[in-house]
Order: sequence, then structure tokens, then C-alpha cells
Amino acid sequence: MNEEMHQFPKGAVAILGDSILAAGPEDEILKEYESADKLDCRGKVVMPGLVNAHTHVPMTLLRGLADDLRLDVWLMGYMIPVEREFVTPDFVHLGTSIGCAEYIRSGITSFADMYYYESTVAEAAAAAGMRAVCGQTIMKFPTPDAKFYEESLAYTREFIQKWKGHPLIVPAVSPHAPYSSTEEILRATAALAVEFDVPLHTHIAETSFEVENARKEWGMPVVPYVKKQNLFDAKVLAAHCVHLDKGEINTFAHYNVGVSHNPSSNMKLASGAAPVSQMLAAGLNVGIGTDGPASNNDLDMFEEVRLAAFLAKLRENDPTTLPAQTALLMATRLGAQAMHIGDVTGSLEPGKRADLILVDIDTLHASPHFSRDPNSTYSQIVYAAKSTDVTDVMVNGKWLMRSKQLTTLDETALLAQAAELAKKIDKFLIAREKSVLTKLIAIGGATQEESFEVQLKVSTEDPEAVAAALKHPEIKIVYQRHYHEYDSYFIFPSDEKYILRYREDVFLKENGQPDHSRYRLTLIGDSHERDLPSEVVLSRSRYLAPADQSLRFYREYFQPEREVEVEKDRRRWLVRFRDTEFYVNVDRMDKPALGSFVEIKSRTWSQRDAETKARLIVELATQLGLSTAAAEPRDYLKMTEA
Amino acid sequence: MNEEMHQFPKGAVAILGDSILAAGPEDEILKEYESADKLDCRGKVVMPGLVNAHTHVPMTLLRGLADDLRLDVWLMGYMIPVEREFVTPDFVHLGTSIGCAEYIRSGITSFADMYYYESTVAEAAAAAGMRAVCGQTIMKFPTPDAKFYEESLAYTREFIQKWKGHPLIVPAVSPHAPYSSTEEILRATAALAVEFDVPLHTHIAETSFEVENARKEWGMPVVPYVKKQNLFDAKVLAAHCVHLDKGEINTFAHYNVGVSHNPSSNMKLASGAAPVSQMLAAGLNVGIGTDGPASNNDLDMFEEVRLAAFLAKLRENDPTTLPAQTALLMATRLGAQAMHIGDVTGSLEPGKRADLILVDIDTLHASPHFSRDPNSTYSQIVYAAKSTDVTDVMVNGKWLMRSKQLTTLDETALLAQAAELAKKIDKFLIAREKSVLTKLIAIGGATQEESFEVQLKVSTEDPEAVAAALKHPEIKIVYQRHYHEYDSYFIFPSDEKYILRYREDVFLKENGQPDHSRYRLTLIGDSHERDLPSEVVLSRSRYLAPADQSLRFYREYFQPEREVEVEKDRRRWLVRFRDTEFYVNVDRMDKPALGSFVEIKSRTWSQRDAETKARLIVELATQLGLSTAAAEPRDYLKMTEA
Repeated sequence: MNEEMHQFPKGAVAILGDSILAAGPEDEILKEYESADKLDCRGKVVMPGLVNAHTHVPMTLLRGLADDLRLDVWLMGYMIPVEREFVTPDFVHLGTSIGCAEYIRSGITSFADMYYYESTVAEAAAAAGMRAVCGQTIMKFPTPDAKFYEESLAYTREFIQKWKGHPLIVPAVSPHAPYSSTEEILRATAALAVEFDVPLHTHIAETSFEVENARKEWGMPVVPYVKKQNLFDAKVLAAHCVHLDKGEINTFAHYNVGVSHNPSSNMKLASGAAPVSQMLAAGLNVGIGTDGPASNNDLDMFEEVRLAAFLAKLRENDPTTLPAQTALLMATRLGAQAMHIGDVTGSLEPGKRADLILVDIDTLHASPHFSRDPNSTYSQIVYAAKSTDVTDVMVNGKWLMRSKQLTTLDETALLAQAAELAKKIDKFLIAREKSVLTKLIAIGGATQEESFEVQLKVSTEDPEAVAAALKHPEIKIVYQRHYHEYDSYFIFPSDEKYILRYREDVFLKENGQPDHSRYRLTLIGDSHERDLPSEVVLSRSRYLAPADQSLRFYREYFQPEREVEVEKDRRRWLVRFRDTEFYVNVDRMDKPALGSFVEIKSRTWSQRDAETKARLIVELATQLGLSTAAAEPRDYLKMTEA
Repeated sequence: MNEEMHQFPKGAVAILGDSILAAGPEDEILKEYESADKLDCRGKVVMPGLVNAHTHVPMTLLRGLADDLRLDVWLMGYMIPVEREFVTPDFVHLGTSIGCAEYIRSGITSFADMYYYESTVAEAAAAAGMRAVCGQTIMKFPTPDAKFYEESLAYTREFIQKWKGHPLIVPAVSPHAPYSSTEEILRATAALAVEFDVPLHTHIAETSFEVENARKEWGMPVVPYVKKQNLFDAKVLAAHCVHLDKGEINTFAHYNVGVSHNPSSNMKLASGAAPVSQMLAAGLNVGIGTDGPASNNDLDMFEEVRLAAFLAKLRENDPTTLPAQTALLMATRLGAQAMHIGDVTGSLEPGKRADLILVDIDTLHASPHFSRDPNSTYSQIVYAAKSTDVTDVMVNGKWLMRSKQLTTLDETALLAQAAELAKKIDKFLIAREKSVLTKLIAIGGATQEESFEVQLKVSTEDPEAVAAALKHPEIKIVYQRHYHEYDSYFIFPSDEKYILRYREDVFLKENGQPDHSRYRLTLIGDSHERDLPSEVVLSRSRYLAPADQSLRFYREYFQPEREVEVEKDRRRWLVRFRDTEFYVNVDRMDKPALGSFVEIKSRTWSQRDAETKARLIVELATQLGLSTAAAEPRDYLKMTEA
């Protein structure tokens, strides 16, 4: 995979220590070099080890935990809560060791990682004998290894100082992504990478949602934004890059930004198809990555290489784009260059480290072999060979696999540990998923705040008269609001005691035009309603949560059995009546069209307070010209369902 | 994979003879059944064998022959010429046997084939112990096994009669595709399928090009067209179905048409992404196929299943669509139902044949296993397991693989035969690709017709005067044409003696508006030009071919070093002058803009005839007011290149 893409049908490689002395025709090599340690590779291809340009290797331990979910549900609903609970240096060491075993079996000799406790990832990788660019994650949110980003930054500095110059490990700094960083984080991480001349590994433009948000929030696409924060002062490796425009690709070319294309992950999470052919045409070093094993779900670069070729053809509607040769080049030399370690690995050239693999192409599924077209060897490897055809792997001149036997790792022991951990994670999630409340708590939402309320609801034919009646000297209006309310109730099977309500309040201006929206999540249930005198209702147990995710997120996360939609126009007054505060809602039910209602309600803390307020509510209702004979004891959901 | 999607974490299957007696919890099965032949499957998943719903299995022998080409170049340039030369019953037997070995290793127990000499495919499949729906190809073009379609039809009738009722083989009829059939073929094959109640296996709507053509040619989409030919009287299995609209999907549902989705092939050939989620929602039986190994390039259903899930997510921009469970269902029960053999295979249910596989999921790359979500087993198999994790395969109650050892096929012997054949194919193609002429002959184009020509070309300032001068009593005009000519010259490296010209003649109406186009391919070269008296030029060696493919096809097939474009306005007269016919071209060179020229030319067969004609040409030129002093000895290409 050198610049000239040399192939030697009868070739040989001469290795001394950790490095390649020569690669070429067998007879020339044998004439020039002597060795007591010769390996006959007949029937196999000797080629550079594959380079996995983007991964989160310790996540082997979370593989298959949750699949077929949308990115946010998968991440916020499962990965982050589980990581918050379980990720420790031990977790990271075990997960990395398992990942390395899988890498070696699949012919991967180098990888670019991004995770937490990255110094432990580096330790485990080095112990396995793998070459790795290890990126310590920094983000604006709390992480398993840091409460604040300053801690991560300090950790990263130490980590870099500790590992810089290691024969296998290249330490790197990893601001997670522009959207999960602040400008300060981007600037600080770029400065750190420049100070130590180490790579900076980040996610860029993975989803169209991210790109839309960048335009909204920063008024520009992702790449100009990070450029403004001096990110490209550093040697950047950018993962995904699914949604880049031509200008951004040119910026990458100008600053020698390496790219990792992750076809399985981008397809599985429906992120899209990256403009790989365009990036290659612009001269970018585009490598291929597996992404983390929890979103792939394997670490099989043979599959990724094939998929890279397939996906580009589909995207460009052109079967001639990204031929096998180019796909394999991406997975070797271009990937190494993208990771900024192209000087030491990625091809079998004199002076580079001896990172190589043997692939058996004399198999049933990759036969026959045609020699007419020199590209047919690439075709065999890319379109027909499997990762399990890799028989031997060498990194830095050391064998990590001989005849399919790993030399540095004990797979059986590792798997036993992983199985133990999986049981604990299962238990944690099963407990969590017992109820809607615990699921709500798991995503950091519920504040477990119970609120008791006394309430009277009365139907009215003349809501305007009620509104007018509020202008009475005995009623002091504290404030008034007008909004349109869209409620979605999630109803669960009968063994679940809660109902979850997602509410959007669209605030309306005086002219009736929408102003802004507020989103709230309320857990309703276990409600012991008790009739107080005069049709006033007491209810309890409403857990409020800030709804910072979308309705769709909650729908997919909570998976209700069914959903009921209610829509109404609400004018709401906070009033003081006889020294007590009440909310008065004048509601017009639009969906279903049930007419108008007046609600008078107040929070309460004791039976006695409730009884006092109930009496006052009846007085206030009478004052407003309402009759308790028209009282409606049901809430809007029950009325809708009736 | 039964209707209820039962999973038994500790399960067992009871088998008697060729059939399943029961499948369920281990303790229940052991209570009810006794057997001396018990197999402990601990650590493995016992599941229905995978069903490959569309393939051309003998093409294992052509795997990797030509890749990264456009469908037409791949098919017309490589597959068809090689098949014309090499496909015999022996070829088909060998290719099928190799394919079956790969199928068994990859956990496939049934497949739907479409090829030539299908009775031999059936023989080889039955000998290997595989279940197969074998479709004999019928098309309007000559095939390796028939000159005319009537021969194929007669062969198919015999073939069906021979195999109908076989315990493993279901014979079928395969009109190749609507575009490669006639209405008569579609009607006759449908009638044959109905007569014997066998499946009809065809390609439908693989490319957008096919669909556009259908609308142009038949005034309707593909599905209504084949419906009109009574195709849906038969039990149809339709492969690809990439470009179907909602109405066509509904038609399929109405007629219980089975579909084979072929994700690798559709991506690799850039055919597109089929509307799988929509077809499933409409209740279609959508199976998954590998397509032929020459367009995939392997027969790995684990890869296809994963890709089906990935591709649907990408297409629908929705990671929740086509979850792992559904993908696996497609590859088993739905596939069998699509092939119209759902009554005998596709799930482990009492009464169905014992077609099952053991998959080791206790591997490094598929660990850990989480039990919280019952879907995680599907996730493991679909997103992480590999075909090489299949350890044992049973078809019809008979083991075809035990602990990774094949029981019915000798892979080493098969591979040796394939290697021998590959050498012959290599030799054939290398010889063919020696020159542009042989490549032209290979695609059935060149008629090897040499033509000699005498010609005088003179530049003129006043082309209208020349046109007017043709109306002279001594010149009899036979006919007159007016067209705009677009020429593309393919220039090859200097060791190639030919230049290839692709010409489009756009015929112009009297008002100058384009009428219709004619496309011709001319091989120019090895030209011994010799100056006759008076600047008249003799040239030879022009091979004409009908250009029935596009310019793009020829460009990708011949791969010229460079291309030169020439464009001119040509008025052409066939005239009779002194009892001899001459062509008079009055040309205006538009690209490059070189001015106007008059060409006078005639075909010739001997030196003497040439000399006579040369003299007459000079006379005619003089008659037309042209001076041989303005003669231009170079052809338009040379003038353009100057």
C-alpha cells in the first residue's frame, strides 16, 4: 500500500527489530538478507495491518445492550446512565483488552480511541501489544472520570506527559464534539495539543441535526465554527464527517485534517452517508473506523472496508466510485495518515514499523483468483475475504497472533469477567426499567417532587363573562398568561401505576400570535382523589421533570402502550382572593372539542388547609358566576377517553 | 421464528426422519421424547437455517472476475461473453457444488436459484443435500443453453417434470426479467408455472433505468406491465424490487408475490435501496438474497442480514426501522414464504422439515450477552455474529456440517477444479483484451468489415455556393441528408494500433430541428494512407459496429487513455456523376471551429478503381468550383489535434 501501490505476487518482507528493512520480490529480498527466522506465507497475502481510525474500545462491555434505537434514546437513555454507573479504570482495562483481542483477530494493528480514563486504555493497549492513538475525552458535561472539564484537562496534560514518546502509544486530546464542548474547551484542548504536538481526536458533523443546530446557534456550519476556536492549529482527526459541504472539505484539505469514515455506525444509527468520494477527490486522508462496539456492534474492519466501498457506490449512484483498491488504501495508509501516524505505519515500506498481517485468500469463499486484472487481489480482500481469514498479526515487529492463536491475551479469562459484569449491568437496568418513575429518574429528569392540589372544574357556556368577572375589587390579579397547550399522555399497560404527560405550552402574544414554547413532563398517578365538600377534588403525586428532550425521544424511550392527545386554549390568572392565591384557568378544549371550562386550583399541604381552600374555591366560583352544579370531577384525559 | 417469535433460553428440538416433531423448553421436550441420538448445543443458538432468496449459484466460478464496473459493462463486457464461452453442464455442476459448500458453511439451508442448465444445478444441490428452488432461465436473447427461447421453454417443461415432487428440489421457471423477455415469453412462462403449480422466479425493477424504460416503452411501470402478461397467475418470487411505487407494492400484496431483497448487490452495483420497510408494512413476504457471487462477492447471509437492517435504517433516516428481529425473520421464515416453500421450512415448528443450524454466540466478538431485553439475542446474531460462527448445519433431517466439517462435499477437490478453470478464463480474457479490436469483437459488436475509401477534402469559404453547384445537370442527386455530428474519439496508449470513434448523428428536419439520432462505432487505424494523384487520399481498415450501448458504456469498457471530441454540421449528398456514386459532405466544423470543408468520397475495391475514382473526384471538385490547392489531407481528428 505504498505510494506506487506495488504488489509482489511472489514477494517477501525483511524485518529487523521493530521495523521493516525491505519489501519486494522474494528473490531480491533473499539475495540481500539472511535470517534464521523465516516464515513461509504461501497462499496468503502479506499486507499492512488494518487501521481502525475511530473507536471507543472499552464499550465492548456494552455491546448489544440496546439496539435499534434513535441516537439520543440510545445515548441518553442507555449508554450515559450505564456509563455513569459502571465506568471505572477496571471497566476500561477489561473492555480495552477484549477489544484488542477482537482487533488482533480481525487484522487490526492500530486504532484511534476516544474514551474516559484513557491512560488505562493506553496501558491495556500497550500490554496487548497494539499501536494506538489514545484520546482522553473532554466535554462540558460531567463524565465518569471528571465532574468538570478542568479536571479532564489536567488529567489529559498528565496523561500526555506520561505516554509521549512510547513506542506503541500516541497520547491525544479529545474534545468530544463541538456541541458537547464550549468555545473555552475547544480553545484549551487545541492549545494543549499544539503545546505537546499530539493529535486532537473529535467528532465532527455526525448528524444533520448537529449541523442544523450549529447554524442556528453559531450562525455557521460546524467546521468554520471550530476553526474560529483555533482547532485546526492542532493535528486533527475528525470522526464521521457525514454532513460536510464543499467549503468545509476544502478547509479540511487546507489544514490537513484527517477523517475517519464509519460506515456501519452511520448506517445503523441512520446518520447518513458521508461524502467519501468527494473528500478523497479533495486529497483528504480518509481512514475507516468501526466506531464503538456498542453502535456497530463488532470491531470487524473487513466488514467496514467492504461497506465503505458499497456505501459510496450507493451514495454516488455509481458502481465505479471507491473501487476495492481505494477502500483498502483507506483502511491502511490513509487511515494511518488521518491519525497522524503515517510516518510509522500504514504500509510495508523500509523504515516503517513492522505492523503487518497474513490473510489466507486460498479459501472457499474468496476463490477463485483471476490474475488478468491486478485489482482482483484487492477485490478478493475487500469483497470476499472475512476477518476470520486473518491468520497472523505482527505489531512493531512482535507477533500478536500466530496461526490464529493470540500471544498476549487470554480470551477465556477476559470473557468470564465480561459475563460477570454483564450480569450486574442487566440487574441495574432491569431494576431501573421496573417503572416509568425509575426510568424517568434514570435519565436524570425527575425531581421526585410531589404536589397536592385542590381543584374545582366547572363547565361554562360563557367564558368571556368569567374573564370579565375576575375584574372585581375583591380579586387581586397577580399576573395573567395566555397559551395554547398541546398535551400527549403516555398510557402504559395496567401493571404500571403512572401516566406520563408531555406538555407543550405555546405562549401567545396579545395579538394571539405564538411567542415561545415551554415543555414539561409530568408523571401522573397513584392518585388518591378524595372529594372534598362541594365537588372540589384533592389530588396528589405529580412528579415534574424538565422536558429537555423531544416528545419523540420520550415516546421511544418510554414506549407507551398508547398515546392520547389533548389540545386546548388556556387563559390563566394567578389571583389573590381572601388572602389566598389561586390559579384560575379559563380553558377552551379544542381536541377533543368539549367546550369551555373554568378551573380554580391551589397547592395545598394538609387536610385542614385543603378544606379551607376548598371552601374558598367555592366562594370564588360563586363570585365568578359559576355554579358547582356544573362541576366536572374528571380531568381532561378522562374526559377525552370517555 | 414461528408466528409468536418464541425463544427458549433452555430449549430443545425433537426430530424424526426429515421433520421436526416438537420445539420448546428442554424439560418439556425431554419429558415427551426419547432418543439415542442427542446433541448438546450448550453455548449455541439453535435456529432455522438461513434462506437465500435469490442467487445465481454457479457464478461462484466467476467471482472477482471483474468488479467496480457499471452494471452494463460488467454484464455485457464480462459476464455474458465469458458465460457464452464457458458455461456448460460441467461448469454449472462445479459452480453449484462450490456455492453449496459456501452456503452450508455460512448457515444457509435453502436457496432460490436462477441460471442455465438448471437441471444440473438441481442435481448438484440435491447431491450436496441442500434445499433449493431451481429456476431455469428463459430470455429473448441466445443463452449458453439455448439459441431461442422455445428451446429453453421445452427444456424447462422437461426439467419440471423430472424434479417435481423431489424432497429437496422445487423446480421453477425463470423468465429472466421483463426487459429481457417478450410479452410472449412472460405469458408462456406464467402459463407453464400455473400448469405445474411451481414458482416463477424473476428480476423486477432492479434499476431506475429499467423503470424509466418500462414507462417509455410500455407506457406503465414494470409491475402493471407484467400483470398484464398474466405473470401473477403464477406463484411469483421477484428479486430486487428496488424501484417499486406504492401501487406496485399493493399489487404484490394482492397477488402474494414474494420478494428477495439483495442489499450487497444493490449497493455494490449502485442500483439503490429497496423500500423494504414499506414492503414489510404492506404485509409482503420479503426475504433476503445474496444475488450471484460475481456481484457480491460472497454468499454470506450473516452479512446480508446485517446489511438489510443497516440499509433500511439509512434509507428511512430512522434507526428504529427494520430491527434485528425483523431482519432475521426476513432471512428465515419470510424468505421461505417468499420462495413459496414456507410450508416446509423457515422456522422450527412441528411438521416442518428439520432445516436448522447451530450458531456459536459464546464468541469474543458477540459477547457479552444481556438478558434484560429479549431482542438482544437477535441483536447478537444480526449485528455481531459472523457466518464463521455457524458450527453445524442440518437439512431435511440430515447433517451437512458437523463441528465445521462438511459431510457431503470435498472442498479441496472442488477448489482445485475451480482454479484450473480460472486459468482458462484468465487466458481467454487476456487474449481478448490484447487489442481494442478483440475487445470490440468480444462484446459481439464488430463485424470485421474493412472498407477502403478514396477521398478529397477541400476547405471552402463559401459552402452555400458548393451546395448550389450540386444542382447541375451532370450531377444526379440520389438523396440528401442534414445532420449534426458529435464524434468522440478514444485514443489509446501507443502500443494500440486502433482509434475508436463513437459517433452520434442527429438528423435535422428541414427547419433545422433535431429529428432522431443514429449511433455508430468505428474502429479506425492500421491505416495505410497513400496519396493518389491530386491530393486524393486512399484509406483502409475501418471496422464498423452498431453502437447499441451508450458512449459511457464504451468509455468504461474500453478505458481510453484520452478522448477527443469533434462536432460538426454536415450536409451530405449521395450523387451520381459520370455513372459513379460519390458522397459529397459539406461540413461546418463547430468544435473546434475550423471553418467549412467539402469532402468527396467513394468506397473502392482495387487500386485501379481507386485511381479512376480519384480522377473523377478531382473532376467533380472542379465542377463544384473547388480548388485542389485548398486540399486538406488530414482527417478531422488530426486537424483537431494539431
